[in-house]
Amino acid sequence: MDYYSSQISNLIAELARLPGIGAKTAQRLAFHIINMPQEQVEKLSQSMVSARNNIHYCKVCCTLTDGEICPICASAKREHKTIMVVENARDLAAYEKTGKYEGVYHVLHGAISPMLGIGPSDIRLKELLLRLQKDVDEVIIATNSSLEGEATAMYISKLVKPTGIRVTRIASGVPVGGDLEYIDEVTLLRALDGRVEL
Amino acid sequence: MDYYSSQISNLIAELARLPGIGAKTAQRLAFHIINMPQEQVEKLSQSMVSARNNIHYCKVCCTLTDGEICPICASAKREHKTIMVVENARDLAAYEKTGKYEGVYHVLHGAISPMLGIGPSDIRLKELLLRLQKDVDEVIIATNSSLEGEATAMYISKLVKPTGIRVTRIASGVPVGGDLEYIDEVTLLRALDGRVEL
Repeated sequence: MDYYSSQISNLIAELARLPGIGAKTAQRLAFHIINMPQEQVEKLSQSMVSARNNIHYCKVCCTLTDGEICPICASAKREHKTIMVVENARDLAAYEKTGKYEGVYHVLHGAISPMLGIGPSDIRLKELLLRLQKDVDEVIIATNSSLEGEATAMYISKLVKPTGIRVTRIASGVPVGGDLEYIDEVTLLRALDGRVEL
Repeated sequence: MDYYSSQISNLIAELARLPGIGAKTAQRLAFHIINMPQEQVEKLSQSMVSARNNIHYCKVCCTLTDGEICPICASAKREHKTIMVVENARDLAAYEKTGKYEGVYHVLHGAISPMLGIGPSDIRLKELLLRLQKDVDEVIIATNSSLEGEATAMYISKLVKPTGIRVTRIASGVPVGGDLEYIDEVTLLRALDGRVEL
């Protein structure tokens, strides 16, 4: 890309390394950044470096946080005997947005995937088992409804059951507002299997 | 978004200000950045600030560059008597990628748009007229084939014609490889009007 000056080419190349940002989007973003007010560019740039350098795993639930312990684990208002296991911090945020879940979380940072070579020791399972030695009533497994998520759910349930702690799995079925004709067969069968009395 | 630590929320908010980056994408990018190697984050961050601070308009053609004059305007290999007028630096790059255009450019940084309140004095037209006082053979207008691009083309052609310099407009028609059935009617009619002898 030598028809741009090297500074622009560099910026485009760096932006294009981000996930979901192709060559065209990187180019568009680069030109936008060049035209942004200087202080906004500096704010963006600093927030990147500062987030990267100051964010680490919560010592209890392994979510990303800038303190020792995340606000949820530190909160006295949460039910610490109920642990919801999620694959990543975005899934945690999705449940927090509902505003209805009162328990705490455990973030695995991945799911078991023999295909990708991700085994049980590559995700934050050891930390979960350690937490179960304290007073826990229920482990709710909220990994994704994908092959990897289901495999991880099975693996965890096998580990937790012998401890006598209740293990549950979030329901899978037709999404609310979902139009049946556009939903895949596997989901439709799951919804049928999981039907409840009215 | 108080279920994230403030550093993450800040980063998400700053990223979401970029064009075409919505809340979900900003979140995905933020988590990616947090997990990126520290030196890569610093490189990205520095390339933003440095591009923003060191890039300005070429004194001749107004494209973005880090020198006084851009590499194209400084090149002795280019035909400086032929000026292609484009709306922005991305359009310049698109023509440079063809590798076939040997003239130089003029970058307007916009197009005339009464709807958006962009008049002739808001784009780099004055700079173009100044260049025409030197030895120029042809002005090729390559603004977009949009309402604004066409209006700008008309405006420029009216300004240039009295000088006696040749003014041309790039052809509009069916894109190469384009399937007629998917092409809009206006383009089809343009292609018909612009038909050439075989």
